[in-house]
Amino acid sequence: MKITVLGTGGVGRAVAGRLDDLGHDVTMATRDPAATAARDEHAAWADTHPGVRLAAFAGSAAGADLVVNALGGDVVLANLALVGDDLDGRVLLDLSNPLDHSQGFPPRLFVKDDDSLAEQVQRAHPRARVVKSLNTMNNALMVDPASLGEDTSVFVSGDDAEAKATVTDLLRSMGHTDVIDLGGLETARGPEMFLALWIRTAVALGGSDFNIKVVRGPSLRD
Amino acid sequence: MKITVLGTGGVGRAVAGRLDDLGHDVTMATRDPAATAARDEHAAWADTHPGVRLAAFAGSAAGADLVVNALGGDVVLANLALVGDDLDGRVLLDLSNPLDHSQGFPPRLFVKDDDSLAEQVQRAHPRARVVKSLNTMNNALMVDPASLGEDTSVFVSGDDAEAKATVTDLLRSMGHTDVIDLGGLETARGPEMFLALWIRTAVALGGSDFNIKVVRGPSLRD
Repeated sequence: MKITVLGTGGVGRAVAGRLDDLGHDVTMATRDPAATAARDEHAAWADTHPGVRLAAFAGSAAGADLVVNALGGDVVLANLALVGDDLDGRVLLDLSNPLDHSQGFPPRLFVKDDDSLAEQVQRAHPRARVVKSLNTMNNALMVDPASLGEDTSVFVSGDDAEAKATVTDLLRSMGHTDVIDLGGLETARGPEMFLALWIRTAVALGGSDFNIKVVRGPSLRD
Repeated sequence: MKITVLGTGGVGRAVAGRLDDLGHDVTMATRDPAATAARDEHAAWADTHPGVRLAAFAGSAAGADLVVNALGGDVVLANLALVGDDLDGRVLLDLSNPLDHSQGFPPRLFVKDDDSLAEQVQRAHPRARVVKSLNTMNNALMVDPASLGEDTSVFVSGDDAEAKATVTDLLRSMGHTDVIDLGGLETARGPEMFLALWIRTAVALGGSDFNIKVVRGPSLRD
C-alpha cells in the first residue's frame, strides 16, 4: 500500500520503519522537512530506511491508501489541518493520545469521557475514514507485539467498517493476533482513557515494555 | 479476619460470600437491614451463607480488621458517612467505580483524571486507610479470578503500605497471582478511568467474563 505517516517522532519512525520493512510505499510527513532531515536522530534512522520519503504535510496524503496519524496529541488538529482535503476519503489510522503535560506528571487528558481526540479528528475531517487503534501500547510494541513472547490484545474503533478491516489487516501483518473491534468511533474514548492506567502501570513496572491481554473466561471463548 | 462488607448488591454478595467461604468473620452492612433481608435475591443468597450477619451501616465497622466498600459509586460518600468514625484506623478496601448513569449508556465517570472516587473517600475519612483494588473486573472474577483458567492482573493503590499489604494478602487468598502495586492513592485514577475501556470491551465481547493480564516483555521480567 501507499502509506503516509504523519509525524517524525519516535512513533512515526517506528511505524514508518516497520511499514517500509513490510514492503509498503511509505512517505513520512512533517512540518519542516529540512529541519527534520537535519536532526541527528532522524538522519541515523533514515540511513536504515532509504526508501522512506520525507515530505511537508501539505500534499503528503495525496494518493495514499492509508494515512497514519502518529502526531503528538497536542498538535494533531493543527497539523492535520495542514494536510487538509487530501484526507478526504482516506483511511486515517489515529494512534495519538490526548495527553496534557501542562500540569506536570502524570499527564492529564485534554479530552475524555464525553468526547475523544479521535472524534475531534473525525469532526474536523468529516470525509476522512478515521480508525482509532494502537494507542494503548508503546511504539515498539505497536509494530512488533510478538516481541512480548505472548499474544496480547489491540483495539479498533471506527464508524467505517471497510476502513476498520483495512486497519485490522495491517495490524495482523505486524503481528497483532487479538484485534478487538470495539464498535463505532465513540468507543475510542475507552482506549484513550486507558492511558491513565497505562502511564501508572509503566511507572510501577519501571518501563513500558508491556501490553494487556484481554483474557476471556469460558463463557466468552469461541 | 473480622470483615465488614458495605453494600448488599451483586458485588457485596460476591465478596461477602467468598470471604465467608474463606473462613472470615463477615458482616454485611446496608441502609435498611429489614428491607434487604426481605428481598428474594438476598434471602436466597443468605440461605447459603448463614454465618454472615446483616447490619445497618451505623456501628457495622466497629472492631473490624477490614472494611470493604462494595457500594454503588453514586452512594459511596453518603453511606460511608453513616458508617462514620468507626472507619478511623481501619483498612478500607474500595472496590467502587464513579459511574454516572444519568446520560444513558455507556455511563460517564463523575470524577476522573484530576481526582478519583478513592481520593474522595480518603478526604472524607482522613483516618481510614484506603486501598483501591478489584474495581477493574466483574464481581465473580474479583473473588475467583482462577475461573478464567489463566493468570490475570489486579491493581492496588493506596498511601498506607501496611494496608496495601493486608489487601494484597487477601487478594492472593482469593486467587489473584499478579498484584500490581501502582503506588499512592492518586494512582487509583488509572484503574477507575479504565472502566471506560472495560465497559466498551464488555459490549464488544458480549459479556463481562474477562480480565486483563499485563504481559511484560523481556526487559520487565524478573
